[in-house]
Amino acid sequence: MKLLSQKIKDMAIRVLVTGGTFDKEYDEINGRLFFKDTHLNELFKLGRANLEINVSTLMMIDSLEMTEAHRDLILMNCKEAKEERIIITHGTDTMEITARTLGEANLQKTIVLTGAMIPYKFGSSDGLFNLGSAVAFVQSLSHGVYIAMNGKCFDWGNVKKNKQTGYFEVI
Amino acid sequence: MKLLSQKIKDMAIRVLVTGGTFDKEYDEINGRLFFKDTHLNELFKLGRANLEINVSTLMMIDSLEMTEAHRDLILMNCKEAKEERIIITHGTDTMEITARTLGEANLQKTIVLTGAMIPYKFGSSDGLFNLGSAVAFVQSLSHGVYIAMNGKCFDWGNVKKNKQTGYFEVI
Amino acid sequence: MKLLSQKIKDMAIRVLVTGGTFDKEYDEINGRLFFKDTHLNELFKLGRANLEINVSTLMMIDSLEMTEAHRDLILMNCKEAKEERIIITHGTDTMEITARTLGEANLQKTIVLTGAMIPYKFGSSDGLFNLGSAVAFVQSLSHGVYIAMNGKCFDWGNVKKNKQTGYFEVI
Amino acid sequence: MKLLSQKIKDMAIRVLVTGGTFDKEYDEINGRLFFKDTHLNELFKLGRANLEINVSTLMMIDSLEMTEAHRDLILMNCKEAKEERIIITHGTDTMEITARTLGEANLQKTIVLTGAMIPYKFGSSDGLFNLGSAVAFVQSLSHGVYIAMNGKCFDWGNVKKNKQTGYFEVI
Repeated sequence: MKLLSQKIKDMAIRVLVTGGTFDKEYDEINGRLFFKDTHLNELFKLGRANLEINVSTLMMIDSLEMTEAHRDLILMNCKEAKEERIIITHGTDTMEITARTLGEANLQKTIVLTGAMIPYKFGSSDGLFNLGSAVAFVQSLSHGVYIAMNGKCFDWGNVKKNKQTGYFEVI
Repeated sequence: MKLLSQKIKDMAIRVLVTGGTFDKEYDEINGRLFFKDTHLNELFKLGRANLEINVSTLMMIDSLEMTEAHRDLILMNCKEAKEERIIITHGTDTMEITARTLGEANLQKTIVLTGAMIPYKFGSSDGLFNLGSAVAFVQSLSHGVYIAMNGKCFDWGNVKKNKQTGYFEVI
Repeated sequence: MKLLSQKIKDMAIRVLVTGGTFDKEYDEINGRLFFKDTHLNELFKLGRANLEINVSTLMMIDSLEMTEAHRDLILMNCKEAKEERIIITHGTDTMEITARTLGEANLQKTIVLTGAMIPYKFGSSDGLFNLGSAVAFVQSLSHGVYIAMNGKCFDWGNVKKNKQTGYFEVI
Repeated sequence: MKLLSQKIKDMAIRVLVTGGTFDKEYDEINGRLFFKDTHLNELFKLGRANLEINVSTLMMIDSLEMTEAHRDLILMNCKEAKEERIIITHGTDTMEITARTLGEANLQKTIVLTGAMIPYKFGSSDGLFNLGSAVAFVQSLSHGVYIAMNGKCFDWGNVKKNKQTGYFEVI
């Protein structure tokens, strides 16, 4: 098993930020949720992550507003990333659609999409837990496109969000 | 890749709690840290984990107090667990020793030890992040004994804690 | 000064809950803020308050939805409360209007309205700080109706919320 | 009552920091509590306090280590402060002794000592609540020396900490 820790020791991870509940904040003046900067670097620090992680913010939007143009931009960034391991933070409502776009491109990379149901800034976020599992799956899984939510990992072609429970499920 | 989500969909995980910083609390009367009950179920709820997880508390101790008898008890529980996937929460100071005890037993199971440097109850815990990665590694790695800390996964025979930085490293 | 601690030792406080940002929660399924139960008792426990406090929930609404009927209900409860000291948790948007309704009734009681700009459940709430000051003002001020926000105390007839800054100010 | 809001509008408050549980942090490397910088300004920001507050750090120590020399320094700073309203953050174990030292000096100022049983950094602190009440008591009480804990206010000559419960009580 030396190979495993060897692999993990050397592996750089690219994180592509697209927004989503993950990064939403509360505007105390108007009582609405909004986006400012990403909290990803803060989350990795909080988790005491000791990996080579490169975070790029592509957009800061609710995934319900995500268009084909946005998805093309994400795909392009996955292609051009020098890293073989990529995590994408993404709103949960259309995560499966973006996963499909990336999956059909059939890149020779391991790409894991993850997100949160509760904003990190609200204290009780599932985001830190999901990020921990995304970091692990992206290091241990073979090439492919996956969704990491609720402690599980799903193949891009085989997953949907259950709108009632908020859990991701195999189709 | 159907197999992957298949595997993950069906997999039950046993969590063996031994204590460690993970579960330490602050006694406001005497200003000392102490153990009460485990917070593991609370953490899985917080992370919105949607897995079949069975938590057993074996002991609630600081890993500096862990004796061979304690480690034998942990090993015995790993052997007897009906689950093939096991997570052990453990203090970080002697985690590598327990990992070695379990690794040398060479069980046909995937066992992941994890812990925290900051108590979960102190709000800014690395525990939730580590637990997320432990859950992912235990589902995706082949049989063996591993330590999941700082977003990384280490083979039992090839890891030590750096006492200065608090990070786990390959020997 | 014996009298002071004497007064404070014997004083029961009635807390009338009306909702407001104070008690708003985040619905992770639809991403909206909503009301469930009040967190007031939890807040007093968190603050290790050691007072005779009686909490009654009158309504759980956003103060923008507050009608004259709601304010009459609050006034009636202030009149009928056996306690001479009353704290009212209230949304900030129309807090000054309710304060005026109560002030004009000229009751022989000390009534302090308070609230929060950030929901308590979002972790970084100003509510706990405001509640601490409300508890102190209600014990130390003579009969009258006051608004306790931002560490300050305002007379009911002399205060407005600055919609730009979210701070309460003397007119 | 115009006078009240008038008074409060113009009132500057001096905060003298001496340490105590209030400001303790957790050293994740050695698992011990220690002092770094004060969190008082952060707490006032969190509470959205909108007052003229001047914070000075006199010392950062556990109140069990407080000597007569430390108390003389605190007294000197109370005397020399240009502000008439002073809050002192202090460890709870010897708070009543420092209060006595200040009370016997019989200054023509309103001085409120407060503290916390749980470090602010541990997320569930009573400090923010106590600070809110201290800010209110210091503005509304006449000249004298007081301890503000557990939502109550005590005269310096008439209070002790109950070591069993951690609550402050009238003697």
